[in-house]
Amino acid sequence: MVLGMKTDLSRTTVSKTKAPTSTTGGRPNTVGILGDGQLSRMLVQQGQRLGLNPWVLGSSPDSPAGQVTGAFLQGNIQNSKDIRRLFRMSSLIAFESEFVAKTALIEARRGLRTQIFPSPVLMDKLADRWSQKKLLVAADLPVAPFALLGASGELDLQQELQRLSQTLKRPLVIKQRKFGYDGYGTFYWPNTKKTQTAFSHALGPAFIKNPGYIVEPLVQFRREMAVMVARSRNGECIAYPLVEWGSHQSKCLWVKGPTDHPAWKPTKLKIFSFLSQIKYVGVMAFEFFDTGKNLLVNEIAPRVHNSGHYTLEACQIDQFTMHWLCLLGAKLPQPRLTAPDFAMVNLLSRGNAPVRWQWPTVGQLHWYGKTQSRPGRKMGHLTVLGTDSAGGALKKARESLKKIKGVIV
Amino acid sequence: MVLGMKTDLSRTTVSKTKAPTSTTGGRPNTVGILGDGQLSRMLVQQGQRLGLNPWVLGSSPDSPAGQVTGAFLQGNIQNSKDIRRLFRMSSLIAFESEFVAKTALIEARRGLRTQIFPSPVLMDKLADRWSQKKLLVAADLPVAPFALLGASGELDLQQELQRLSQTLKRPLVIKQRKFGYDGYGTFYWPNTKKTQTAFSHALGPAFIKNPGYIVEPLVQFRREMAVMVARSRNGECIAYPLVEWGSHQSKCLWVKGPTDHPAWKPTKLKIFSFLSQIKYVGVMAFEFFDTGKNLLVNEIAPRVHNSGHYTLEACQIDQFTMHWLCLLGAKLPQPRLTAPDFAMVNLLSRGNAPVRWQWPTVGQLHWYGKTQSRPGRKMGHLTVLGTDSAGGALKKARESLKKIKGVIV
Repeated sequence: MVLGMKTDLSRTTVSKTKAPTSTTGGRPNTVGILGDGQLSRMLVQQGQRLGLNPWVLGSSPDSPAGQVTGAFLQGNIQNSKDIRRLFRMSSLIAFESEFVAKTALIEARRGLRTQIFPSPVLMDKLADRWSQKKLLVAADLPVAPFALLGASGELDLQQELQRLSQTLKRPLVIKQRKFGYDGYGTFYWPNTKKTQTAFSHALGPAFIKNPGYIVEPLVQFRREMAVMVARSRNGECIAYPLVEWGSHQSKCLWVKGPTDHPAWKPTKLKIFSFLSQIKYVGVMAFEFFDTGKNLLVNEIAPRVHNSGHYTLEACQIDQFTMHWLCLLGAKLPQPRLTAPDFAMVNLLSRGNAPVRWQWPTVGQLHWYGKTQSRPGRKMGHLTVLGTDSAGGALKKARESLKKIKGVIV
Repeated sequence: MVLGMKTDLSRTTVSKTKAPTSTTGGRPNTVGILGDGQLSRMLVQQGQRLGLNPWVLGSSPDSPAGQVTGAFLQGNIQNSKDIRRLFRMSSLIAFESEFVAKTALIEARRGLRTQIFPSPVLMDKLADRWSQKKLLVAADLPVAPFALLGASGELDLQQELQRLSQTLKRPLVIKQRKFGYDGYGTFYWPNTKKTQTAFSHALGPAFIKNPGYIVEPLVQFRREMAVMVARSRNGECIAYPLVEWGSHQSKCLWVKGPTDHPAWKPTKLKIFSFLSQIKYVGVMAFEFFDTGKNLLVNEIAPRVHNSGHYTLEACQIDQFTMHWLCLLGAKLPQPRLTAPDFAMVNLLSRGNAPVRWQWPTVGQLHWYGKTQSRPGRKMGHLTVLGTDSAGGALKKARESLKKIKGVIV
């Protein structure tokens, strides 16, 4: 190895202006992505394949997305000035995360004709579990009962939780309205120390005035399921196959499919109607509880999603390409399967030590290029296609995972 | 569109040193690619997916490969100083083209432990049609008879061609020994004006002293076929399915498969033996003439190749990933098909006007990001997977091609 001998390793400094007439397929092709993590990385790569010229706004050129493009802007995705730099050169904008401040987006776009999908106003509603749930209910989609914690005016939080739990005849789940995913911002009541600790500081008038949590009964379910759906600017909707998924400490560990459910067909129609009602553009992830008879919507993610990574190999069109086609207003291809059976496993770092592997002979590895391991961090994923339809792929994928050092199995 | 409004569009200037301990899967992950065209672009993207950190040496950060990496070195791939910059930071090196000067490679590597696949000496032999043919013959692979033009000492080129043509009882094909592909450097004798023009300047003592062309009989064939094969550093060999291809003015226009041939099984064994004899590492393309009974090797390309682009969608492991796995010394996965039938069509620019399309609903588009169209230039490709095995995919792909403006159909 010669890596210690380097002296002149600065990246090429490129000072240039992109030609304003930059086109692909006769169309302006410069698009922007807010965020530079692994979802952005895969959006960049599939966008480049389509002929788009995706610029990335993010914190570091060494980030997962920063590594895969020469078109990187270093900045803060919550800062309207930085966002505006991206907007100025982009005909349309995609999100990696729903948690970008609406006001910053609106300010950044002032006077520009950059198109943002979904719109900042809609994205803000979808990013908030309270308004998200209300939109789902309005579209007749089945969700668990829910309430806004503190909204009753009850000043004693323990008393309010006690009352709600009695009414619903169930233990409760408390979920942060915003910035909560992968189990972050989710608490259980009663009986865990975590719950009480998290809420001790939240009690009091300030919390009651600006309630930041919703509360739901803890749902009893058979399995957790998910599906990626998409709606194009032209109004067309498609759905990927229904999948089952499993987690480790609320973080997605594996996905397998295709699967089915008696309620899937009517649920799909309601989802399409929901997407049209809210004029959504792009792909969206739905996470369900399979309660036997029903598919109860647990939460949605208005973007590409971990539960759709399998589509890169298992479908004739992947979720990232599909997202761009939606934003471009293309007619959407049907996402046919390339194998009767597929599974994806996440490489979740167990600790701070580097994840180590022998190059895999089973499945396809996607490594995100993160320079640091941290407990539970998503470092990459592995997809396995199977030749039967009985879940053989997941078995293979999990066996493969056992050979990778430093990951959660 | 706001593309005309940009003021601050210089790419982020990143002055940094890559950490010498940069690893993926516990291994050094910085690899280098000589060249920045579309083959390099796809090597970069699939390498990144594997967790490699591919640096590119090429002429422009706006090139097909330059666009898809933040790790770009601007320089001349024939210049040993520039090559050495790439070598200093790379644990191993891949080629986009076989036409890199051996002496520059050897000089650039002096004192470094960078591994180059294939070795500069082998690559030099494979890049020269004369020594390439001799290696094929030594491995008992069937090739058309061939001779070195001018080697007989005959000073009158026309007389030599006349004599060879009489001996072989066929019209002749004259092929440049180096730098010839996609029909470039190929001439026919007798009867085309092109042949005579090309050779008028080559006649004379200097040409005779350093013969630059081989000559072969024009082969009568039923169809042109191709196959991608691979050999890992650990010695393991695999073969992708046999495909058929068609051309426009000697440039690959389409590929379809899978197909078969009575001679394929024994030919495959000879190819594996050939790869082992020459200690080749990486993927390699074989182009054949199907003469009915035989598969006659027309030429080989010691690298990823246009005839293998279909593998990105039609196989569970693509040629670019396979190439990296070979160089890394991984156990090679079998390249199983994801569909019973597949086809790829090249988007060859008809002229200088931009190629224009509606976003395709059939197949998957790969656009190379080239900023200029030129007659016959490869601007991208389109892959279609079919559900039958009777060549339906090619029909669909060619119909799709008709909807793209500015390409050769």
